[in-house]
Order: sequence, then C-alpha cells, then structure tokens
Amino acid sequence: MSEPHHPARDQIRLEAVLTALGHPLRMNVLQVLAEGGEYPCGAIVDGVSKSTLTHHWRVLRESGVINQRASGRTLLLSLRRDDLDARFPGLIDAILASYTPADPAELADAR
Amino acid sequence: MSEPHHPARDQIRLEAVLTALGHPLRMNVLQVLAEGGEYPCGAIVDGVSKSTLTHHWRVLRESGVINQRASGRTLLLSLRRDDLDARFPGLIDAILASYTPADPAELADAR
Repeated sequence: MSEPHHPARDQIRLEAVLTALGHPLRMNVLQVLAEGGEYPCGAIVDGVSKSTLTHHWRVLRESGVINQRASGRTLLLSLRRDDLDARFPGLIDAILASYTPADPAELADAR
Repeated sequence: MSEPHHPARDQIRLEAVLTALGHPLRMNVLQVLAEGGEYPCGAIVDGVSKSTLTHHWRVLRESGVINQRASGRTLLLSLRRDDLDARFPGLIDAILASYTPADPAELADAR
C-alpha cells in the first residue's frame, strides 16, 4: 500500500477542515479520536460499508484532520491534534464543546 | 417576496454551520458580517453572479449563520452572532481567529 497523502501542517486549510467536520459521521469520528491515541479504523464506527468509510477517511485525511497509517492489514487512525491546535488555536476545542452527538437514527441516515 | 426560512436558534446544527463556512466565499462573508450590523447583499462580495450569490445566501441562511430580510428591493444580511454564540460558545471567535483570507485569485476560483 503506497503512503496516502497527508497535507503538511502549514498546508492545512480552515475551509477544508470545516467541510470535513460538517458531516455527522465525520464529526462522530472526531469525537472518538479526540480521546487520543490511534484507533484501528474498524473500531470507530459501526454499521457502515467499507467503501463509505474509505470515502470518509479520505475526506478527513486530505483535509488534515486525521493521520492514517497502515499496520499490517489494519489502518490506524489518529487525530492530528497538535497540527490542528497549532494552526487554528482553540478551534477543535470549540467544535468539540459545541458538539451534541446525533441520535443513532440520524447518524444512520447520514451514511 | 415571502419570508425566507430561518431556523430557530435551538434548531441550528453544528454540522450545518461548519458546512456553510467550509467555503472561501462564505467564509469571506462571515468575516465581513462579523463587523456587525446589516449589509445590503450587493455590498459584500464583488464580481459574483446574482444566481451564485443567491445560492450562497441560502446556504448561510438555512444553516442559521445569517439573517436575511428584504427592505424594499434590497436584501439586508446580518450575522446571527447572538444565536451562534449562545448555541456554540467560542466557535465563531475561534473560526474568525483561524481565518486567513484567501488571495483574490483563489477566491475567484471558488466562485
């Protein structure tokens, strides 16, 4: 698997981060990853097809929100918290504080 | 002109606000309106077609970011700052602080 593209810290763009997080499933992923550390991609969201998840990982990765690396056959995902906080001080905190998880039915619709 | 739909404060959704602001032109509008007061819609962005602007006003209005009212033949736009700050404390401040205006060519591309 070739190394997927991740923007450098100074190339992370505010509009791209907001667009990436402007979706219930991806916002849910932010909340999970904000706990810290790396998560196997299969452990974050339930009941979503692999191709749909691949799309959402790409949006999150290409916007600079998450880091993605392969470990054997597993993808490990983590939040680029240091990069985001350096680039946009207070933004991720404000977004997380503003977030009320969607109810499961709503999240299911968004998939 | 019938009154356009504006969501009530408690129906403003974080994901919709982030999606609305995840676009260079709409982010530019936020920055202008954040100065306070009402602006005639024609005084905010230059060089964009009326139909394109109508689309962007709708996205901003339906997400709860702006208030829009007709005054004679003019549309007056203002930021729903009190509603947004009540709903998502610190969010708009963090977004404005994170914003670096796109260069004009980039903004032109986004239109």
